Amino acid sequence: MQRIIQDLVQKNNTKILLIVLDGLGGLPKEGKTELDAANKPNLDSLAINSACGLHMPVAMGITPGSGPGHLSLFGYDPVEWQIGRGVLEALGLGIELKKTDIAIRVNYATMENGIIQDRRAGRPPTEESRKITGKLQERIKKIDDVEIIFAPGMEHRFAVVLRFPESLPKGSDAIKDTDPQKEGNSPIPVTPSTPQAERVAKVTEKLITEISDVIKNEPKANFILLRGFSQVPDIPHFEDTYGLKSLCIAVYPMYRGLARLIGMDAQPLKGDIREEIDFLKKNYNDYDFFFMHVKKIDSYGEDGNFQGKVSKIEEFDKFLPEILNLKFDVIVITGDHSTPALMKSHSWHPVPVLLNSPYVLGNTCKGFSERECLKGEFGIFPTVNLMPLALANAGRLKKYGA
Amino acid sequence: MQRIIQDLVQKNNTKILLIVLDGLGGLPKEGKTELDAANKPNLDSLAINSACGLHMPVAMGITPGSGPGHLSLFGYDPVEWQIGRGVLEALGLGIELKKTDIAIRVNYATMENGIIQDRRAGRPPTEESRKITGKLQERIKKIDDVEIIFAPGMEHRFAVVLRFPESLPKGSDAIKDTDPQKEGNSPIPVTPSTPQAERVAKVTEKLITEISDVIKNEPKANFILLRGFSQVPDIPHFEDTYGLKSLCIAVYPMYRGLARLIGMDAQPLKGDIREEIDFLKKNYNDYDFFFMHVKKIDSYGEDGNFQGKVSKIEEFDKFLPEILNLKFDVIVITGDHSTPALMKSHSWHPVPVLLNSPYVLGNTCKGFSERECLKGEFGIFPTVNLMPLALANAGRLKKYGA
Repeated sequence: MQRIIQDLVQKNNTKILLIVLDGLGGLPKEGKTELDAANKPNLDSLAINSACGLHMPVAMGITPGSGPGHLSLFGYDPVEWQIGRGVLEALGLGIELKKTDIAIRVNYATMENGIIQDRRAGRPPTEESRKITGKLQERIKKIDDVEIIFAPGMEHRFAVVLRFPESLPKGSDAIKDTDPQKEGNSPIPVTPSTPQAERVAKVTEKLITEISDVIKNEPKANFILLRGFSQVPDIPHFEDTYGLKSLCIAVYPMYRGLARLIGMDAQPLKGDIREEIDFLKKNYNDYDFFFMHVKKIDSYGEDGNFQGKVSKIEEFDKFLPEILNLKFDVIVITGDHSTPALMKSHSWHPVPVLLNSPYVLGNTCKGFSERECLKGEFGIFPTVNLMPLALANAGRLKKYGA
Repeated sequence: MQRIIQDLVQKNNTKILLIVLDGLGGLPKEGKTELDAANKPNLDSLAINSACGLHMPVAMGITPGSGPGHLSLFGYDPVEWQIGRGVLEALGLGIELKKTDIAIRVNYATMENGIIQDRRAGRPPTEESRKITGKLQERIKKIDDVEIIFAPGMEHRFAVVLRFPESLPKGSDAIKDTDPQKEGNSPIPVTPSTPQAERVAKVTEKLITEISDVIKNEPKANFILLRGFSQVPDIPHFEDTYGLKSLCIAVYPMYRGLARLIGMDAQPLKGDIREEIDFLKKNYNDYDFFFMHVKKIDSYGEDGNFQGKVSKIEEFDKFLPEILNLKFDVIVITGDHSTPALMKSHSWHPVPVLLNSPYVLGNTCKGFSERECLKGEFGIFPTVNLMPLALANAGRLKKYGA
């Protein structure tokens, strides 16, 4: 379908704003979901005048990660376009990936006599593990002609990027995890499962040896386990697909990284919704499409903090009039997945969405919530259809057939 | 899916009527859509006792042309079955196409010293251009063994059909438009982009030479530009697929042409709903399936005439009791796409539909409108599913599996 869309795209001067309230959808506590419980007059009145519905990022019953959740929102089939674990980890740690990179998630581990005693090296404090990772980066900058980039993470976790000087063939990341999954076993040797992966496997073997040499005398973090070898996907660019010059406005590095993967512009931002809106205003004239990501709603959901999630929705609601004053042609407000505080995790529940433009039916919902959105004119639909709807409402899609 | 349906089809004596109110769906003006604003007691009371919903001809956000809109209604996937521009143009001008035809849209143009000065030959009055086209038909009846049929159109437009004595291989219509798109350029030479298209290209070259000879001394319309070369699609026949002997009742030639492409019977009709209903009554006993097309609702939508569209819906409503008296087993009333007066064009919005038979749930909607149909038992669904629903309600589909 994305190919048909691409053929129908036409350009004009309209501006589209996609606001992703991460983890927006919820489940009831004493009858009310987080959205029901929130006092959010601006969102409610916007929903009444908008096209509403609920979207499914992957499929019914499937709980999406942040990668598939966002790819769907951007109109990419999340089953066709998979983003490897290593790539997501590296993006989340703020690394700007290139097409020639292989990204890997790494754990510090404790090894004795060739046997893994602790797969997480006793969960070292983050400041401690960061020091070790810093030392690794200082000592190891290249393996042969391959640049090595270390990205320190939380506790026992970090990421490594192998930056090759040349483009790698497809299948170069087909290497088994070296993590034996259970303590008491030897690490699994670096095993390429395709001939294309042999070059990467050789570099990885040398890398493990060099890292071991540096850390072998650490009391606990004296070895490493590698997981999620992955290449940067050769995914079509957002602007090539939709003809939209696009800007990502996000505080967390992973979302900026995801957006950059599809060619959106992004700059590091610190802080909160206030800073995001200022950045949006500053760049209003220079882009056609704005993806604004609001993280904290999900974080409170993940913590099981129902009231915290409610408060964050209310906080966003106060900023909404200022956003509406910017006069976007199309505004979409939704989440990338549901994160019910009740479940303390992402969930499979479809995500409430509203789309505002002059070309909606409207007056189907009394406010913005899971139950009200069920009555909306979009019904329950696959998330990948949201981009075509936004484009259509912006007058950016020609008629199909005569 | 169409293949599964074909395996399940069984015949009986039921009669199905599909009424297409072209461009039916709309958008609100001061809160009310055209359907909301129309006083249509008969449609409303039928909707209350029917299965209702909204259907999407192609996909969410995609605005369908009349071709894809109708193919979907007839149960053909509009992405799989595409009808070329030349074919639609020729059908619209009333030409009965055969499987061995190549149809082409043509513009009269003004050429000087090999350069196109005006791509539309100064938009000649229709009666003037018709005279020239008449002269062409008189002088040019054949190129080699290929019959040439001219169909006069409006202003600078007409269509040409190349009727070959033999079946042409697939890809025979792969010829670039000769229209350079911009004045000040030479026309593009006839260029086949596949080996199969070479025979058609040669005939076309000779045709251009012969036409030029006839019109070279016209003051403005002294050359032609060709676009939309297309073969008649080798599309399965409606009766072979569904076991339904079918009749098209339409005033506009293009809809009859579309219906004939899939093997429906059709006869030229002039006039209005009154004449269509008389024709329906006359043929009631001879067919299983009736496709009745009402055009004017769309035309008023395209003109942005909200009240005109409302009046045409009201006019149709007055005829409805007479139609219901004919006691069809299944009646479907819908549109081929939405044409909101607000947008003055086809749109991507799903189209309200009601299906009446003894086997519906009913009592889900309070009337026939976009918002009421949202509450209906069909929900929002792909248009291609409408034919299986009509067949099922007519008792014409066997159980699938044991």
